[in-house]
Amino acid sequence: LSELLDKFSNIKAFVLDVDGVLTDGSILVTEDGDQLRSMNIKDGFAMKCAVENGYKICIISGGTSEGVVKRLNKLGISDVFIGVKEKLHVFNDFIQKNNLAANQVAVMGDDVPDLTLLDACGLSTCPYDAVKNVLNKCDYISPVNGGKGCVRDLIEKTMNSQGTWPYNG
Amino acid sequence: LSELLDKFSNIKAFVLDVDGVLTDGSILVTEDGDQLRSMNIKDGFAMKCAVENGYKICIISGGTSEGVVKRLNKLGISDVFIGVKEKLHVFNDFIQKNNLAANQVAVMGDDVPDLTLLDACGLSTCPYDAVKNVLNKCDYISPVNGGKGCVRDLIEKTMNSQGTWPYNG
Amino acid sequence: LSELLDKFSNIKAFVLDVDGVLTDGSILVTEDGDQLRSMNIKDGFAMKCAVENGYKICIISGGTSEGVVKRLNKLGISDVFIGVKEKLHVFNDFIQKNNLAANQVAVMGDDVPDLTLLDACGLSTCPYDAVKNVLNKCDYISPVNGGKGCVRDLIEKTMNSQGTWPYNG
Amino acid sequence: LSELLDKFSNIKAFVLDVDGVLTDGSILVTEDGDQLRSMNIKDGFAMKCAVENGYKICIISGGTSEGVVKRLNKLGISDVFIGVKEKLHVFNDFIQKNNLAANQVAVMGDDVPDLTLLDACGLSTCPYDAVKNVLNKCDYISPVNGGKGCVRDLIEKTMNSQGTWPYNG
Repeated sequence: LSELLDKFSNIKAFVLDVDGVLTDGSILVTEDGDQLRSMNIKDGFAMKCAVENGYKICIISGGTSEGVVKRLNKLGISDVFIGVKEKLHVFNDFIQKNNLAANQVAVMGDDVPDLTLLDACGLSTCPYDAVKNVLNKCDYISPVNGGKGCVRDLIEKTMNSQGTWPYNG
Repeated sequence: LSELLDKFSNIKAFVLDVDGVLTDGSILVTEDGDQLRSMNIKDGFAMKCAVENGYKICIISGGTSEGVVKRLNKLGISDVFIGVKEKLHVFNDFIQKNNLAANQVAVMGDDVPDLTLLDACGLSTCPYDAVKNVLNKCDYISPVNGGKGCVRDLIEKTMNSQGTWPYNG
Repeated sequence: LSELLDKFSNIKAFVLDVDGVLTDGSILVTEDGDQLRSMNIKDGFAMKCAVENGYKICIISGGTSEGVVKRLNKLGISDVFIGVKEKLHVFNDFIQKNNLAANQVAVMGDDVPDLTLLDACGLSTCPYDAVKNVLNKCDYISPVNGGKGCVRDLIEKTMNSQGTWPYNG
Repeated sequence: LSELLDKFSNIKAFVLDVDGVLTDGSILVTEDGDQLRSMNIKDGFAMKCAVENGYKICIISGGTSEGVVKRLNKLGISDVFIGVKEKLHVFNDFIQKNNLAANQVAVMGDDVPDLTLLDACGLSTCPYDAVKNVLNKCDYISPVNGGKGCVRDLIEKTMNSQGTWPYNG
């Protein structure tokens, strides 16, 4: 447990999947073939707060949704990569560009395309309803499901461990 | 408990958050960047009933949704403020304009931007799935989650305590 | 229980509410002010089956949704009344037009605007998550929530009690 | 149990229903009369993986949704049949065209229109929230509900039983 707390206390950046993490994994299919996602306001609040307090956030998704990009940009997140085939490549570019060591990066993913990232980072995390392979791998399993505030949980726990979450007392 | 009942019996106005209170905190993101909310018909029924029986309702949201404003206006609620940065400022204008004392106002909020309002009012309330800081602060925690009828619960309990809810017997 | 079974065995028509019965009570609000509902395929299957087997179905809703009307028409239901203020008036017209006795009609409603109908019919029913006033009034409380198949449950139980549900064995 | 494992180990093709299997049975009704479905990213991941590893997938739906067809096509599934009245006819064409024996085909369905298919195939399966007639009939009941990943569960279990799921270890 103390080792886990150490891992939280080192984190300066969050690398997040979209489907199943920032969403509950549902895709609303329109007749035009658009695929709409549902995101959570509590996650958005925490990501905005993290960015304003100097943390880096990088979104890496295999899916493609312009709407998701627009919402994330509005929250102040510029590193949003969608339609990604090789997530590890984007991850490595991101930490190099930002002079981050691997142990300063937390990853949250829910499915097997996230496994290489979860291996490469300092704090591997997932929502409560991640697939078994991911659950078995992670340092920290959030008690919250994908799309229901699991990213809020990760960010708030991290910032609390460092005394940077502004809303306690 | 008797103290809580006293607080309910004084209420003449409701100040409500949108995301996480009138919704479950989900935002459906369209490809155009629109952010659509889902509201609950039972909450709408209660708000309409409260307005028709002389209660004041004020909506204060940090988010921006024209669709939410249109639906609330249809229910007879004219005091709808969206995109609000300083909620307390809007709150104070509202109670002054309506000659309300703070102890005549119930607030329902679910997250830290609502904390100043919950401090300022006579009856602080939240949905069952509010964040911990808010749960710790509130006089009354509804047994109902955000977007699932927590506002109906608040309004019906308040009006019942005053004998003004028209549907008992 | 035997009395309840008698009531089921008399039913020749179903009068149904929309919001909270054929839906879970959520309304997706678009930026244009449209209010979109989510309906359940299992309910639709049962309503179609009932109509094909000679039962009458009448939908009476206080809300207004052209999309709901279109879907219900496709299922073979022509008596769809939306934006109704006085539900009992529409109910009485419907049973008179179809030469039905009150005890031949089952009503399913979830909220106080349905109470007069639930009083007027032969078999009063509601989804599991109806409001307390309605739960207290009903002959039969479905174990299924609104929008999750409560109408399927009502229709299948009714037709089973009469040996007209085609899918047993 | 050993008999069930045998059935899984023979499977070379999956025949799947849409509503209640690839979706949770909800239909979002727009004002234009469009009926939008919500699909699950984990199901999509598994179907893509199965196709890439040489399994055949055939979708047979009584409903009609162009959006669903477009998404399934993107996943590499070409055999998508919507608006089907007689599912068994389409099923027989599919297995004949692909030189499949009935015991090489798994079917997942949730409601009575799927019963003839569940009878005709080698491994009959359903989501956890299928209707009673279907639950009683199936060789395997997934622990997962419709639209929440039941197809992922079926495909992953099948491919694991044959050592073809690429993500264990």
